[in-house]
Amino acid sequence: MKGNVLVGQSGGPTAVINSSLAGVFKTAMERGYNKVYGMRYGIQGFLDEQYIDMSDIIKNELDLELLKRTPSAFLGTCRYKLPEIHEDKAVYERIFALLDKLNIEVFVYIGGNDSMDTIRKLFDYSLLTGATQRFVGCPKTIDNDLAITDHTPGFGSAAKYIATSTKEVIYDAMGFSYKKKNVTVIEIMGRNAGWLTGAAALSKGDDCDGPDLIYLPEMPFDVEHFTERVKELLEKKDVVVAVVSEGIKTKEGKYVCEFTAGSETRDAFGHIQMTGTASYLAEVVHQTLGCKTRAVELSTLQRAAAHLTSKIDVDEAFNVGGATVKAADEGSSGVMVVIDRVSDDPYQSATGVYDVHRIANGEKVVPRKWINEEGDYVTEEFMDYCRPLIQGQYNPIMVEGLPRHLNMNIHNYDWARKAGGNQTIT
Amino acid sequence: MKGNVLVGQSGGPTAVINSSLAGVFKTAMERGYNKVYGMRYGIQGFLDEQYIDMSDIIKNELDLELLKRTPSAFLGTCRYKLPEIHEDKAVYERIFALLDKLNIEVFVYIGGNDSMDTIRKLFDYSLLTGATQRFVGCPKTIDNDLAITDHTPGFGSAAKYIATSTKEVIYDAMGFSYKKKNVTVIEIMGRNAGWLTGAAALSKGDDCDGPDLIYLPEMPFDVEHFTERVKELLEKKDVVVAVVSEGIKTKEGKYVCEFTAGSETRDAFGHIQMTGTASYLAEVVHQTLGCKTRAVELSTLQRAAAHLTSKIDVDEAFNVGGATVKAADEGSSGVMVVIDRVSDDPYQSATGVYDVHRIANGEKVVPRKWINEEGDYVTEEFMDYCRPLIQGQYNPIMVEGLPRHLNMNIHNYDWARKAGGNQTIT
Repeated sequence: MKGNVLVGQSGGPTAVINSSLAGVFKTAMERGYNKVYGMRYGIQGFLDEQYIDMSDIIKNELDLELLKRTPSAFLGTCRYKLPEIHEDKAVYERIFALLDKLNIEVFVYIGGNDSMDTIRKLFDYSLLTGATQRFVGCPKTIDNDLAITDHTPGFGSAAKYIATSTKEVIYDAMGFSYKKKNVTVIEIMGRNAGWLTGAAALSKGDDCDGPDLIYLPEMPFDVEHFTERVKELLEKKDVVVAVVSEGIKTKEGKYVCEFTAGSETRDAFGHIQMTGTASYLAEVVHQTLGCKTRAVELSTLQRAAAHLTSKIDVDEAFNVGGATVKAADEGSSGVMVVIDRVSDDPYQSATGVYDVHRIANGEKVVPRKWINEEGDYVTEEFMDYCRPLIQGQYNPIMVEGLPRHLNMNIHNYDWARKAGGNQTIT
Repeated sequence: MKGNVLVGQSGGPTAVINSSLAGVFKTAMERGYNKVYGMRYGIQGFLDEQYIDMSDIIKNELDLELLKRTPSAFLGTCRYKLPEIHEDKAVYERIFALLDKLNIEVFVYIGGNDSMDTIRKLFDYSLLTGATQRFVGCPKTIDNDLAITDHTPGFGSAAKYIATSTKEVIYDAMGFSYKKKNVTVIEIMGRNAGWLTGAAALSKGDDCDGPDLIYLPEMPFDVEHFTERVKELLEKKDVVVAVVSEGIKTKEGKYVCEFTAGSETRDAFGHIQMTGTASYLAEVVHQTLGCKTRAVELSTLQRAAAHLTSKIDVDEAFNVGGATVKAADEGSSGVMVVIDRVSDDPYQSATGVYDVHRIANGEKVVPRKWINEEGDYVTEEFMDYCRPLIQGQYNPIMVEGLPRHLNMNIHNYDWARKAGGNQTIT
């Protein structure tokens, strides 16, 4: 009889990270593993013996379907970096003792670069000690910045949400343009990689011209040049929409959002939170050109909008989750599952596995050739790369007019008492 | 043979204002009117003879269906208040000369309080001069603050979007709560009326506890008391979510967002835009209680999100649009169409007409009895009132992975040359 699978989620959530979790659970059950344990709050919670038996949560097919469509990291997530093995062996001894105690054969970690670093270290430790558990990484990040894999689960749905919202914001702005030119600056997540910011270009089509300007963090940003470009555009049209990454910085390396640091307020609380990049640029344009401006930050919504996901993305996330268990079951360890693009037309993808040492801590940014010469838009090739990833919908399961999720408020489940371990979930 | 219908849109758009426009067009055609002209940018554009022949835009049933699902004010909108008749007769003379020139029999204006003021004035002028055109108002506003009507088209879809997004933000926050309490402040539109802010409570259900605190602009807001309440809640739970109206103010009448005024920056551009209400409160909580905080502004998205509308709302908006033409065709003038709630269980509504003098410039706020005693949540009665209005979906018509809209970029249509008048659309 097979032992158990342990799965955790780490880093920022996506709209489909729970679809991968569902895939891990389903494949583990199908392949005859005894139990699937879920780490609460990733490796950080696991070190405190915080885990659950997933079968206490997923009792039937509907639960599994709900889990696939539930936003946020269902198990809870963490941002926790394991020490190097030579720095602190005790942490590793503790983790492996727990793995033995729970009879874990397969360890799956769903996450981005930092999470793959965790897989790498645990695998390396298993080599050093001859431990038999297998360690497999499951890619996840809206930022799409993981190496080797064609793209990451989570990116497609965030891109779809961003393109949809960008089109809606452009339409809204067009309604107000009579004898009153207006400029909108939309701010998108992605501090170092501009994949998501570039995805705003997908709003371009028969029914929409798309944004006028797109600035990725891969290129140095010049505030004055930006204002000049907006001014030129306003001479030709009434509505200008610019999309900027939260991470754009000047050629000196200063983040644009830092330009507002140093603001002082006269209330009791001292410094006020930095104004965002979009707010700052909107204000600069307003002050310089005098026109009406608006800043829109998509903020948390772009990674949490489970109500508007890409079918390709949800399915791939699910498949990639399943592929981690399959890979481990067939003997792989120290690998991450990757997505290979088999064909562009029609779009087809397949999963593969790749040495995690080649992936961990890498960062894949948008190649220079996919940004236009002026550095203020993405190319057709960039859009061709993205477009297949936003296709199709998983309509939410609607109850009383709202998307229903698998109840994440698992504090209320009685597994907290049942599941054993010193569970002091507070 | 009947003459023509003229229709315009005014004020802030909603996700369903174009569904009303579609309703006007369809009923006018069915009732045998010759043409439907659309004012470009409301009465302001019309004064400059900016109008289009709607049949140049809507050529078939699919176009009509697309229009129903297109966000923003398709015809363009304005914020333009007509002078009182005794102040400036020339404006009225010009409008009525244009109405005669275009053989207009029915004048429909889709909008909120200010737009109903326009209907009232034009109707009053027609009484003074014996003009035979009929003037009918079509209610529209996400703010739900129009008098007499049970609710306004636009509110239900915005409420649905807000409740859905609030649930997603709550889920996102729950994923990050391990050994790190966090507070999220969500800011919602509605400067004087708290209907939309209160609608965040609809996120409460079997799968979500909903926000912890909800502050409407109807009640005075106390920053210190708010921080105290958050502190109390953090003693019992790890994740606290507060929803605030952009319009909350202290008992002295100062807007909370004004607390950040007076910030000075050291860059070349002088004052930076006021930090928003949510950003300010998030920063206050962070400074006072030391925990991680996040501010989320739903901004333009809440009125533009045509990708997540309520079926009840889209249908009612369409019906209300049709009812304006019907009312005029049957002899009414100086009225607004209202929605009467016929039954709560099952929800049923019907359209009626009401004297626009009783509606214009009024403002319906949330009644005190629908806010809890402490002033930090809405009551069950409030939620029972809202819930029917968010039911059902109109799924967007998806093309290449994105919602397709009726192309609003009508500058490119050749009607601009065809439609006559001195159309200098730039």
